[in-house]
Amino acid sequence: ENSLMTIAPKGLDQVFTAMCGTCAVECALKAAFMAHQHKMRGGAPFTEEELTSCMKNLPPGSPNLSIMSFQGGFHGRLLGALSTTRSKAIHKVDLPAFDWPVAPFPQIKYPLEQHAAHNAAEEERCIQAVRDTLIANPNCIAIVVEPIQGEGGDNEASPSFYRALREVTLELDRFMVVDEVQTGGGNSGTWWVHEQWGLETPPDAVTFAKKLQTAGFYHNINLRPSEAYRNFNTWLGDPVRAMMAGKIIEIAKRDNLLENSTITGKFLKDELLKLSEQFPGLISNVRGRGTFMAFDAETPEKRDALVYNMRQAGVQTGGCGVRSIRLRPQLVFTPTHAGVYLDTLEKVVKQMS
Amino acid sequence: ENSLMTIAPKGLDQVFTAMCGTCAVECALKAAFMAHQHKMRGGAPFTEEELTSCMKNLPPGSPNLSIMSFQGGFHGRLLGALSTTRSKAIHKVDLPAFDWPVAPFPQIKYPLEQHAAHNAAEEERCIQAVRDTLIANPNCIAIVVEPIQGEGGDNEASPSFYRALREVTLELDRFMVVDEVQTGGGNSGTWWVHEQWGLETPPDAVTFAKKLQTAGFYHNINLRPSEAYRNFNTWLGDPVRAMMAGKIIEIAKRDNLLENSTITGKFLKDELLKLSEQFPGLISNVRGRGTFMAFDAETPEKRDALVYNMRQAGVQTGGCGVRSIRLRPQLVFTPTHAGVYLDTLEKVVKQMS
Repeated sequence: ENSLMTIAPKGLDQVFTAMCGTCAVECALKAAFMAHQHKMRGGAPFTEEELTSCMKNLPPGSPNLSIMSFQGGFHGRLLGALSTTRSKAIHKVDLPAFDWPVAPFPQIKYPLEQHAAHNAAEEERCIQAVRDTLIANPNCIAIVVEPIQGEGGDNEASPSFYRALREVTLELDRFMVVDEVQTGGGNSGTWWVHEQWGLETPPDAVTFAKKLQTAGFYHNINLRPSEAYRNFNTWLGDPVRAMMAGKIIEIAKRDNLLENSTITGKFLKDELLKLSEQFPGLISNVRGRGTFMAFDAETPEKRDALVYNMRQAGVQTGGCGVRSIRLRPQLVFTPTHAGVYLDTLEKVVKQMS
Repeated sequence: ENSLMTIAPKGLDQVFTAMCGTCAVECALKAAFMAHQHKMRGGAPFTEEELTSCMKNLPPGSPNLSIMSFQGGFHGRLLGALSTTRSKAIHKVDLPAFDWPVAPFPQIKYPLEQHAAHNAAEEERCIQAVRDTLIANPNCIAIVVEPIQGEGGDNEASPSFYRALREVTLELDRFMVVDEVQTGGGNSGTWWVHEQWGLETPPDAVTFAKKLQTAGFYHNINLRPSEAYRNFNTWLGDPVRAMMAGKIIEIAKRDNLLENSTITGKFLKDELLKLSEQFPGLISNVRGRGTFMAFDAETPEKRDALVYNMRQAGVQTGGCGVRSIRLRPQLVFTPTHAGVYLDTLEKVVKQMS
């Protein structure tokens, strides 16, 4: 009763377990490729030519299909997933990649209420770019997108952007994979951030790893491979880690830890917004959901100095993107802990100002 | 004192841990790509063009480099590793692949003493094909090879074949990755099968997973990335599994389990050879090292029937290749256990004959 299926996103009643986040993403993409080709064959068996040519890594058996991802996105580091990762050159340089398409991700300005018109236009521009890219790439069978671009700098887009994205994928008949390896697990206030978008049609697949201590992806029946063992691995996830996930889920339910993340996150955001008014050079663009939050310093140098000074003051805090700081507390992080963090942060930014 | 480094192959004093066998192979290949490009730059930093182009998945930052593998080889199922897997179409069909080169693997005939001339000529033909393939593909920076092609049907080649292979890679300046995900772990009689080849120069990398319960690869200093975090993963292996591997290594040393595998394997092979003289339609081409063994039935149908009948008689036994049966006992498998297996096998093959 505390298994992965009890927290499955609405509409996704299948789960595939894997060994790590990258494996989860690549297996989800593999399922999408298989489902697409199965549909193209009209459910018919593989052709002899497909079976022969794939042994030579050539079409039609190894089809020239692609996955669209977003600038700033991070989806893992093995060669397939890495071809969808677009966050930093250091992850990609020197490694062969599939020539797959990419679309711009909205560059939102904060505070949101002062930039509503700009942000709406920016999101509309990106949706149009996605549509153009998918139309120009008929062999692009799926898109993969994060609810918040974690590694890329905690870039968010609005729920209406994601609803429009889902509409485009449905209209153009492409799969939508939502990569919640970093955002899933409850500290956004819900088990899955995409549940906060109000989608009419759920995504086709949702990946998970990190915070849940076990990896894999949820999916709908369309992404179930036509034959057994096509999407496979010797270990296919780890029973010890599945038990850890079960215990995490059990305690999160028992102690209302998702609600705690919502409450703590609201407190943290309100206080960070106050600090950002006093110290805009070090704290700006406060954003996030639940305790899954981030803010920016004015420059990469100021960000690095702030991370260093926080560590000297006893608080380990992580950078992301070029000038952002990301907060990724555990589910048990309460307003009391947030208070300790905020006191230290205030002391440090005062010293730096 | 029972860590992974105490069983490191000779000459490889670095280890990288990963989450599964496929991850181990791909991370080893990533290390080879990085090392090659680093060498091509003469140790200079990345160029601006490399850093920019890799974000678009285009050369020179995403270089058009390749890995050569062998027909019948199996190296995993994620998209990079899968481009080197050549065992069965069902693993590959419908999935995009890198257009990487492949070479023939020796098709050895048994018993070895009756086919010495054929086998030597066959291995020479394959070495020549490897050389031709590498010369024709200057962008092919490494080869990956199994000591025994497990998934492909327990195909073996002689130590002299592998010594010649190592010489070709050194002569043509390519890396050699030995994939011991299936063969490593001690039941061949040594921790690593490639240690039985008598190589003058060790391979550049050796992968492991499966039997050791933890995954990764050993490598020499040349395959150490130029910067930290280039070959990386959130979990980078699992401490629980590392402890399991440590305990396996401890007990294997304490109880001389590698020697046990050698002794048990010799008994098993001798008895299987006797049975193969009586029942050549069901048991032929007996081969292997230690208890890592296999034999062939005359046809796929006979193999499948034998697997089925063995299961009915209480023994679970696995197929591989098109008509082979593979034995993969644990390290604690003694001659007593082998006797139980052989008695059941004899009873079943008599009934089937």
